[in-house]
Amino acid sequence: MSTLIAGTCTPAVVVDVEVLDRNINSWSARFAERAVGLRPHTKTSKCTEIIARQVAAGAVGLTVATIGEAESLAQRGFDRLFQAYPVWAGTPERARRLRALHERVDLMVGVESADSAVALAVAARGTSRPLAVVLEVDCGMRRSGVALPELSLLARRSLDLGLDVRGAFTYGGHAYANCDAPPAAGDDEVRTLQDAESLLRAEGVEPTVLSAGSTPSAVYSARPPVTDERPGTYVFMDRQQIALGAGSIDDVSMYVLTTVVASHTDGRFVLDAGSKVIGTDRPSWLEGHGFLPAYPAAVVTRLSEHHAVVEARGPRPRVGEVLALVPNHCCVVVNLTDTLWAAARVDPLEPADLLSSSDLQRWPVISRGSNT
Amino acid sequence: MSTLIAGTCTPAVVVDVEVLDRNINSWSARFAERAVGLRPHTKTSKCTEIIARQVAAGAVGLTVATIGEAESLAQRGFDRLFQAYPVWAGTPERARRLRALHERVDLMVGVESADSAVALAVAARGTSRPLAVVLEVDCGMRRSGVALPELSLLARRSLDLGLDVRGAFTYGGHAYANCDAPPAAGDDEVRTLQDAESLLRAEGVEPTVLSAGSTPSAVYSARPPVTDERPGTYVFMDRQQIALGAGSIDDVSMYVLTTVVASHTDGRFVLDAGSKVIGTDRPSWLEGHGFLPAYPAAVVTRLSEHHAVVEARGPRPRVGEVLALVPNHCCVVVNLTDTLWAAARVDPLEPADLLSSSDLQRWPVISRGSNT
Repeated sequence: MSTLIAGTCTPAVVVDVEVLDRNINSWSARFAERAVGLRPHTKTSKCTEIIARQVAAGAVGLTVATIGEAESLAQRGFDRLFQAYPVWAGTPERARRLRALHERVDLMVGVESADSAVALAVAARGTSRPLAVVLEVDCGMRRSGVALPELSLLARRSLDLGLDVRGAFTYGGHAYANCDAPPAAGDDEVRTLQDAESLLRAEGVEPTVLSAGSTPSAVYSARPPVTDERPGTYVFMDRQQIALGAGSIDDVSMYVLTTVVASHTDGRFVLDAGSKVIGTDRPSWLEGHGFLPAYPAAVVTRLSEHHAVVEARGPRPRVGEVLALVPNHCCVVVNLTDTLWAAARVDPLEPADLLSSSDLQRWPVISRGSNT
Repeated sequence: MSTLIAGTCTPAVVVDVEVLDRNINSWSARFAERAVGLRPHTKTSKCTEIIARQVAAGAVGLTVATIGEAESLAQRGFDRLFQAYPVWAGTPERARRLRALHERVDLMVGVESADSAVALAVAARGTSRPLAVVLEVDCGMRRSGVALPELSLLARRSLDLGLDVRGAFTYGGHAYANCDAPPAAGDDEVRTLQDAESLLRAEGVEPTVLSAGSTPSAVYSARPPVTDERPGTYVFMDRQQIALGAGSIDDVSMYVLTTVVASHTDGRFVLDAGSKVIGTDRPSWLEGHGFLPAYPAAVVTRLSEHHAVVEARGPRPRVGEVLALVPNHCCVVVNLTDTLWAAARVDPLEPADLLSSSDLQRWPVISRGSNT
């Protein structure tokens, strides 16, 4: 899967494998200590080399966002897949794909409405065993997921339809609301899954899955009755995670290498990594669109598709200089490239030599654009 | 290149070919009337079927953002390519690619600093003819491009280096500053290129290219001495362009088909087209992340990677309903998918049948992720 190459151009996404491995192993150990499983969200890396490392480090399963991602992993021999999403299976093509996947791997899918449960049951008709579902319950983010009072009815309907109800999952995405939000979001996840457990038991379901999520909240919700956590970003870390306290700058294992293509005497300079490379995600509590370790005072103030405009606020690089940028949100960066370039080590202060390094390996992004 | 298919799943990007053709032909006629060429920016569609239509409608050349996009077009037989970007050619791999491209097609590249000009001249050394460059001049956006007073020196340096200086280009991207900005941005483009023309003549250059850009400003700057316009978005249109007055809702030729995966009694519903499908671009002067013709009062208030949270503010769709969404910015949508699904007509009020229509053709996105 990986190819040694002789040279690449910017913008390029590079991975520091030593830091990557340290993140994977330390997070694995951290949750093992608490007897909570890791079911990493693979949408972050979309990369076989990284997902295989997570499995080797003891993942209890893998999380995906789409059927396309699950298909891509199943083709590569990965099993125990959980689509933590309110899956709609009510069209012939999607029902066909879901059925094929269910016959091939140990698959669990999310459900959060009676209509979806009906469609899933119809889609799975005639397969060799009942389709496993996990009921999504909202813990405060107000995205998808039923409110707790609706859980019992959803469980009953799912059971009546012959679905294999494994338990409940929630996502404390309100951990991203501000830099102080993660502990309370983690508490919300635990409390919600506790209540879900009681409600499910009252319906005759002994849950084997009570799954919580998110890199910033995971450390706060990793306690009973939570059975597993679904963080994704922890493998790479990024500016958001550092601001939220989930990691430090030393834990960053992914950088975007970018070249200065313009540098002006008014203190402004321009990088060749725009929104089509680093994405535009920027929460209100982060200034700018990335951090440049070699120019720590600089602020990436504006993004066009192929330009990042930076205010130096200090020393200013010359045209042609290669910089390493820590992106705001690593998941969108992966989704915008075909290749992660893996190196044993990345020095974010001296990244230029990497572009012609014989140490660089090509790790393909396997399910980019698998959004259906 | 196009494949008839039997069924697809959401999220899916669909193109109404009748409206697409109307846009291509009407914009072509509009600029022909004014004796200004169209050099469409191909980063919008990244699609051979669409770019070929633009060439057939009389494009004087094609604009690209990256060498990768140019390589991709050159491989498919397109010529007269202009990389309207401050190209840095100072690494061996990029110099090699640029040289190969220059030998293969009629290529012009942007330059906006003496350092870049030196690197371009070195990269082109030993090729069969001088490398053609167009000097980038800023007209008020303050992204890349030299200020007018610096243009003479840049021209002189480029000439001294043996580069084939064809003229100047500018990009009135400040047309996107607010809904009333396009006319003044167009005027800025014209004024700047007028001054650039005089400055270049004083250096002995008779410019054959005085190129302006952007879909919202193009109609305001299409007059002498501008030789050509580089709009991209006009082929599809989107919410931004409608708000800026570059087109109307009837000119929209691209929609994202999306399925309602959750629908709650508090008026909130959730679509399966998140930021990894429609992008997060949202200027301050647009509310929400897309327009739903079937639910015109609804506002897409929040995006996660695979969820769009919508406030109905009126009737609310049921789970499983397929909706057509007009994205804020069509260019980022194309860059996030492998396929445009082309249909003779798209009815945004009744899009569900398209998913199983035998009329649907697969148009590949050819240079997604070609960011280097």
